[in-house]
Amino acid sequence: MGDHSIPEENGGDPSSSTALDIYPLSCYYFGSRDSVSLNTETRADRLLRLRANYDAVGMRSCVAAVIVVVFVSQNYLLQVELFKHPHLLLLQVQNSIYRLPGGRVRQGESDTDCLKRKLESKLSAGEDGRGPDWEVGECLGMWWRPDFESVLYPYLPPNIKRPKECTKLYLVKLPPSRRFIVPKNSRLLAIPLCQLHENYETYGPIISGVPQLLSKYSFNMVEP
Amino acid sequence: MGDHSIPEENGGDPSSSTALDIYPLSCYYFGSRDSVSLNTETRADRLLRLRANYDAVGMRSCVAAVIVVVFVSQNYLLQVELFKHPHLLLLQVQNSIYRLPGGRVRQGESDTDCLKRKLESKLSAGEDGRGPDWEVGECLGMWWRPDFESVLYPYLPPNIKRPKECTKLYLVKLPPSRRFIVPKNSRLLAIPLCQLHENYETYGPIISGVPQLLSKYSFNMVEP
Repeated sequence: MGDHSIPEENGGDPSSSTALDIYPLSCYYFGSRDSVSLNTETRADRLLRLRANYDAVGMRSCVAAVIVVVFVSQNYLLQVELFKHPHLLLLQVQNSIYRLPGGRVRQGESDTDCLKRKLESKLSAGEDGRGPDWEVGECLGMWWRPDFESVLYPYLPPNIKRPKECTKLYLVKLPPSRRFIVPKNSRLLAIPLCQLHENYETYGPIISGVPQLLSKYSFNMVEP
Repeated sequence: MGDHSIPEENGGDPSSSTALDIYPLSCYYFGSRDSVSLNTETRADRLLRLRANYDAVGMRSCVAAVIVVVFVSQNYLLQVELFKHPHLLLLQVQNSIYRLPGGRVRQGESDTDCLKRKLESKLSAGEDGRGPDWEVGECLGMWWRPDFESVLYPYLPPNIKRPKECTKLYLVKLPPSRRFIVPKNSRLLAIPLCQLHENYETYGPIISGVPQLLSKYSFNMVEP
């Protein structure tokens, strides 16, 4: 009889998949702070602003964080089937829009610096209550927008020489403990990978594709 | 006025995306050799074989190669719009089934050794006419099959403790020149990434997801 359990890492094979430590949600503290003013720009105004920015500084570069946690608490009774399954942290704004934490890279700023700045402003109490530094890992993928309002592609579409936006996804590794503080008018959610996969309608192309981008990792659930 | 071209790599930022050298299809020689006998096993026989193998040696492990080339020849007139767009090498068998080159890992064999063996047998003249060694790079993703005939997932689905199959995708980097020799009854195709993306119906989940897995690379087209 052979071994029927999930095999261990292919010992010594340098090309084998990478392990990623993830921690239970119960390791983290979640709090809220004052609401931030929401963007009430009309679609036409937004397009005008994007065009003006493009003329001034060229392609818009954005970064986004892929942060994975796990449920291991036995109290998580409602969905026991998701016990030990990896979950992705998402921000929900205006009750329907899901976003990876992140934002636009400033001129001259590195992707890493931008992502740390955005994580500090969106998931922490801000510069004052600075927690441990954010650990920005490898780039997992890029999505291109050939025109200001076009759909996103995971490649530069043929014959597009002047794309208008590029969003890079980076893996952000959490320490065993951290405080998350989000504005009262946004929600921080942990959504199981199995709910995101192929769920393009609810989460859009970037988020619904994250399970695939993470598939090379062997998740190592650390229980403190 | 800002720079409107595609920006260069984020110099010095260690987390920025990775460059991948790819070469024009015209760098490679494509030939054919005798047909190989096709698998004529019935679905019921296949299931019996998979079950017997699982009982004997546990989960089936497979590896598959992601090989990227580019069209830069001006003679490629029919689809000029795909000029310089990356293409994925696929094997087509029985006129409808598309596959990444690869196969099943033997007991005790490393993923890398298996993939080199499979590339040698499927894309070369075999052990005799050995060309340059195949350069197996990083693991790009993994797909799991919870049961023998179930669909594939880019994660281990919740509560599946005894998956029946795991397929790992590896990037294989081509040298500036190489001979590809495939059996007469299979075809080696170069399909543009833009044709694969979201084309689940034609190519299945693994191949249609490859553009996303490759999206972190900046392709560097080398013209010899």
